[in-house]
Amino acid sequence: MNQWNNEQMNQSSQLRIGIFGASGYGGSELLRILLFHPHAEVVLVTANEHAGKAVSAVHRNLYGLTGLSFASAPEDLSELENLDCLFLALPHGAAMEIAPRVPERVKVIDLSGDFRLSEMDVFKHHYKLAHTAPGLQSEFVYGLTETNREAVKGAKRIANPGCFATATLFALAPLVKGDLIAGRVIVDAKTGSSGSGAKAAANTHHPQRANSFYAYKPFTHQHLPEIEQELKRVGDWTSELVFMTHSLPVPRGIFASCYVELKNELTHEDVRGVYQDFYHDDFFVRLVEGSPDINHVKTTNFCDIGFAVQGRSLVVFSALDNLVKGAAGQAIQNMNLMFGFDETMGLMLAGSNP
Amino acid sequence: MNQWNNEQMNQSSQLRIGIFGASGYGGSELLRILLFHPHAEVVLVTANEHAGKAVSAVHRNLYGLTGLSFASAPEDLSELENLDCLFLALPHGAAMEIAPRVPERVKVIDLSGDFRLSEMDVFKHHYKLAHTAPGLQSEFVYGLTETNREAVKGAKRIANPGCFATATLFALAPLVKGDLIAGRVIVDAKTGSSGSGAKAAANTHHPQRANSFYAYKPFTHQHLPEIEQELKRVGDWTSELVFMTHSLPVPRGIFASCYVELKNELTHEDVRGVYQDFYHDDFFVRLVEGSPDINHVKTTNFCDIGFAVQGRSLVVFSALDNLVKGAAGQAIQNMNLMFGFDETMGLMLAGSNP
Amino acid sequence: MNQWNNEQMNQSSQLRIGIFGASGYGGSELLRILLFHPHAEVVLVTANEHAGKAVSAVHRNLYGLTGLSFASAPEDLSELENLDCLFLALPHGAAMEIAPRVPERVKVIDLSGDFRLSEMDVFKHHYKLAHTAPGLQSEFVYGLTETNREAVKGAKRIANPGCFATATLFALAPLVKGDLIAGRVIVDAKTGSSGSGAKAAANTHHPQRANSFYAYKPFTHQHLPEIEQELKRVGDWTSELVFMTHSLPVPRGIFASCYVELKNELTHEDVRGVYQDFYHDDFFVRLVEGSPDINHVKTTNFCDIGFAVQGRSLVVFSALDNLVKGAAGQAIQNMNLMFGFDETMGLMLAGSNP
Amino acid sequence: MNQWNNEQMNQSSQLRIGIFGASGYGGSELLRILLFHPHAEVVLVTANEHAGKAVSAVHRNLYGLTGLSFASAPEDLSELENLDCLFLALPHGAAMEIAPRVPERVKVIDLSGDFRLSEMDVFKHHYKLAHTAPGLQSEFVYGLTETNREAVKGAKRIANPGCFATATLFALAPLVKGDLIAGRVIVDAKTGSSGSGAKAAANTHHPQRANSFYAYKPFTHQHLPEIEQELKRVGDWTSELVFMTHSLPVPRGIFASCYVELKNELTHEDVRGVYQDFYHDDFFVRLVEGSPDINHVKTTNFCDIGFAVQGRSLVVFSALDNLVKGAAGQAIQNMNLMFGFDETMGLMLAGSNP
Repeated sequence: MNQWNNEQMNQSSQLRIGIFGASGYGGSELLRILLFHPHAEVVLVTANEHAGKAVSAVHRNLYGLTGLSFASAPEDLSELENLDCLFLALPHGAAMEIAPRVPERVKVIDLSGDFRLSEMDVFKHHYKLAHTAPGLQSEFVYGLTETNREAVKGAKRIANPGCFATATLFALAPLVKGDLIAGRVIVDAKTGSSGSGAKAAANTHHPQRANSFYAYKPFTHQHLPEIEQELKRVGDWTSELVFMTHSLPVPRGIFASCYVELKNELTHEDVRGVYQDFYHDDFFVRLVEGSPDINHVKTTNFCDIGFAVQGRSLVVFSALDNLVKGAAGQAIQNMNLMFGFDETMGLMLAGSNP
Repeated sequence: MNQWNNEQMNQSSQLRIGIFGASGYGGSELLRILLFHPHAEVVLVTANEHAGKAVSAVHRNLYGLTGLSFASAPEDLSELENLDCLFLALPHGAAMEIAPRVPERVKVIDLSGDFRLSEMDVFKHHYKLAHTAPGLQSEFVYGLTETNREAVKGAKRIANPGCFATATLFALAPLVKGDLIAGRVIVDAKTGSSGSGAKAAANTHHPQRANSFYAYKPFTHQHLPEIEQELKRVGDWTSELVFMTHSLPVPRGIFASCYVELKNELTHEDVRGVYQDFYHDDFFVRLVEGSPDINHVKTTNFCDIGFAVQGRSLVVFSALDNLVKGAAGQAIQNMNLMFGFDETMGLMLAGSNP
Repeated sequence: MNQWNNEQMNQSSQLRIGIFGASGYGGSELLRILLFHPHAEVVLVTANEHAGKAVSAVHRNLYGLTGLSFASAPEDLSELENLDCLFLALPHGAAMEIAPRVPERVKVIDLSGDFRLSEMDVFKHHYKLAHTAPGLQSEFVYGLTETNREAVKGAKRIANPGCFATATLFALAPLVKGDLIAGRVIVDAKTGSSGSGAKAAANTHHPQRANSFYAYKPFTHQHLPEIEQELKRVGDWTSELVFMTHSLPVPRGIFASCYVELKNELTHEDVRGVYQDFYHDDFFVRLVEGSPDINHVKTTNFCDIGFAVQGRSLVVFSALDNLVKGAAGQAIQNMNLMFGFDETMGLMLAGSNP
Repeated sequence: MNQWNNEQMNQSSQLRIGIFGASGYGGSELLRILLFHPHAEVVLVTANEHAGKAVSAVHRNLYGLTGLSFASAPEDLSELENLDCLFLALPHGAAMEIAPRVPERVKVIDLSGDFRLSEMDVFKHHYKLAHTAPGLQSEFVYGLTETNREAVKGAKRIANPGCFATATLFALAPLVKGDLIAGRVIVDAKTGSSGSGAKAAANTHHPQRANSFYAYKPFTHQHLPEIEQELKRVGDWTSELVFMTHSLPVPRGIFASCYVELKNELTHEDVRGVYQDFYHDDFFVRLVEGSPDINHVKTTNFCDIGFAVQGRSLVVFSALDNLVKGAAGQAIQNMNLMFGFDETMGLMLAGSNP
């Protein structure tokens, strides 16, 4: 085999990209996409426990596609001065230590929850951590591209949304904006096993997980406050939100079933119109007939939305890939906008059937 | 290998059992259990398309465990006179043609939906069939053993509950009986692929199903009316029920997440008490801490129930095996009671870990 | 959502592509790749049972990515005159009826077994069909790109290899060319469920397949003769080949374990050298340390090869995606060469981890 | 729910059973079976890391079926004096420290590899451990029940076979006994993920494992020497054995494809006769037409054997559940014989379809 030569496509106009925490699944997907992005060059990937190893020895899917090796995260972050964009794909709590020290000119996209919440006590309650960079939070734009596109375009720092939050917000935002919701909202959300990360653990042990389905973190999932915060920005959100997370026995995918009581009866066409209007210009949100299926969005940056309505009772289904539209893909979509590219650049990832 | 000899354990006190439609998954599970039941002898198994074949050629798990062969269903049902109990494990619509012709002395347990609903127009609406034996419906006892035990004991004919209905009713019945529910109830239910039956179909094609999750039959699943009918029997049910079914990429298991608004705030201990009291004498309903998991009930007759409560917001989770507690196991539990045996007889099926 | 506009990238230099049988999995993968190929424009896709339907209604992964609809296959194939390349992704036996009627100027790539075998009696024996276009067979070049690149470049018609054959040939060809094999060769091959095609069937019924592993077609798989035919072209193949196929409970992937007795003892480095030399210029064959894994090649056009050697005993492992390198991907790789493009064009498909 | 009362069936004739290492998967399966064994009472289960916890908190399938709690392993093994039988379900290397200290009257069944190999240098080579109780090894009978039944009946200590070894030996023993094999034998063996044990690890991390298939430990698996040792006992084994292990993406099951060159051509009936004669009295070995399937033996104590023959080329397929016939089930089968019970007692575990 011949090594693929990234540099064939590199030009002086390439963005210079760094990824911290590139051995995890978020980092894995950033690499899968960015290595083929026509205007990006990944120049630094860190993973302390794998420092010195070839990226393709850890992400064996990338063997032959990159000559990059993992580095340790630099102590002195002024070394990052020559980057254009830094992705932080680290466990919760790490980005708030790093972000304050990143040189001013480097745009930052954080995939963790560190900078998503504007209220520090809410952050502390849900992440069980005291925030060490509260002053910086207001500089971060919440990167749900479709509801926040203009702010993203002008942002220097992005707090990339959580996977569950992304799926839920896509289902609810049009209804909140249209002020259509009465009463409490139930979100029954399910995630694939990669949502637990790349480290082996009891809940992702294959013999246990392969035939399992169960709920976890009832009422307390840390994505709940970012959902409510963003819904309040989109419209006049005053409902109670019951948010329940479950574990699916598949590697990838999030499916959210969102149960809404409408203020008034709506027809199928009415509801369809609400979503069509809201997502009219959004390439990555697809409105489908009937139910979406995580099988049709796996490995892609699409969120598929379907619904059923009966009188004042509406259920909205959203399906996406937790690692792409729910993490790395959306992060790159944001990067595209921050640097003036078409938001689909590098993200025309067709899923496969089967 | 030596063929296992059923008759070693057969005695004059054995029930003589027939199973119509024994090549499907319901029939498969009836056989798996009844072949080892200390007081049952399966003497007739029908499956028209497999007539003449050895049972173990179709249910290859049973090879070496039975010498039975499939027969055609007899034209003249008076031939069934020598049976004690007949299980009907046929597609919807078949039992109502057969039941009227079964000899009076033979007790009948129907696993289909034909005799579950007391209102014929509701039946017609949900099953898209005109009922051909409406007069017989009132002779059928709805066989949710735990809520209906005394009636089952005296029954000659049982309408065995649907799998989704069983899971949902176990979660909601104690709350309805206690008159604890305010407002509408959301049931987000998920089933494994064996719920679609033993015949290959597009929605159970392995390449599609293995990585999928999707919703189906929104607002219209045929188990909805039997749930409401039984809840009205258990207590004063007046709430709206939103019932949504989804497909899981596992062969077996049902998991129902039931979202309830309580009339008054309850503590964890309060709720626990409600369920403990209700299921105090019910061996097959297990109250678990946290969430149940379909992995822990697969191949067993258990329904595991867990819950979480926060103020007036309660979610109850129930997990069972759709083919056992949701079909064949519950049917045999009913048979045990109808014939005066301990209801656990032949049903001490421990699941496995993993 | 906005429909993606294929034509943005279409230029006068685009190849005009037709696909017959585009509703199957081979067709699905051809579409997934060709819709994004910089020098291809798919202008005709046929699927008789779906004629008139949108492609994205069948291949729901492609929703938003194509406005194409399925057509019926034309009766009069002179209508294909305006195509540059026609892919036949039809069941065995169909291509031999069609190929003779395709206009001379249209290059044809057949994904079925119809034109792979030069001996008609062998074809008849393995496919249980009398060949209806035996005179045309010699015009077809066997499209295992890596062993046949020069012939492919000059070909007007390609018989695209079978998926098992591709995996096996990649493992054995270097050894045969080097005349290193003594005694009989055992190939223990395993395939994912998509190898059975897009139609639901008993052996791909999810409840059965999800926990299964079994062998099928012992000694008689129809890919056996094409393997032996090609090995004889590559070198002096005189060994007996025991070829055994098995079914894996995953949607995609082929893994072949090939057991060889070497004429002489070889070291690990010796064997590595044999493969490195053979595949030196082949981007899509990756030599890995230890065992390959189907997980690392899924959805890609790579074949990963690993091996272990002990004295004169050698086992070679090859892993590929049956629908890509084993079907559609290799077909497009051949198309690229036939039309003078770089063979990797449109095929830089990075797999994902996980 | 009511707790099931083990003691209902306990009588003075019950064996008193201890299990060391009962939190692992071998222990889990011993418990699943022994809790329902009509002549066994489990009185001691140890698991140091879970000491004090209810068994059903770890093996949640057993909730409601046992009131046992885990204990720490006693320091002074004379406390075991009141046991009749002790199962050691510990990691390799632990049993050899314990066995010498178990009171003489207590029969011991070791599920690890510690006492399977009679040659200490072979043990050291494959287990990377110096044996600390070499003198005791000769007291252990290799517990492949079907080939060693008489010795098992008289044994006080059993070395229970490895899962791969069991599958391979069942396939090859009849051929070796009949002196039918010429040339080298290839065994291509595949195991489910539970073979790696109950502890989470990188190779059993669900996101990785769910779509994977790969080979491991080429030529060096530690079950190889016990296979050869036992084949030499069964007949005149002089062939080379190539033994290759692979990982399947299912929780349970072993499938071995065994490729043999016969000394002389045999017909299908000839081969069938060889296996029928050999296993004539063996309930748990089932000879099937065509290929066996791990799906049909999961959770059971059966080993299913099938084969195909063509001239002098024979392939034998064997399928079993690695945790039952490959571990706990076979161990209990041995216990039955050691204590004079029917070997099937407690082991009439019908698998399920699906």
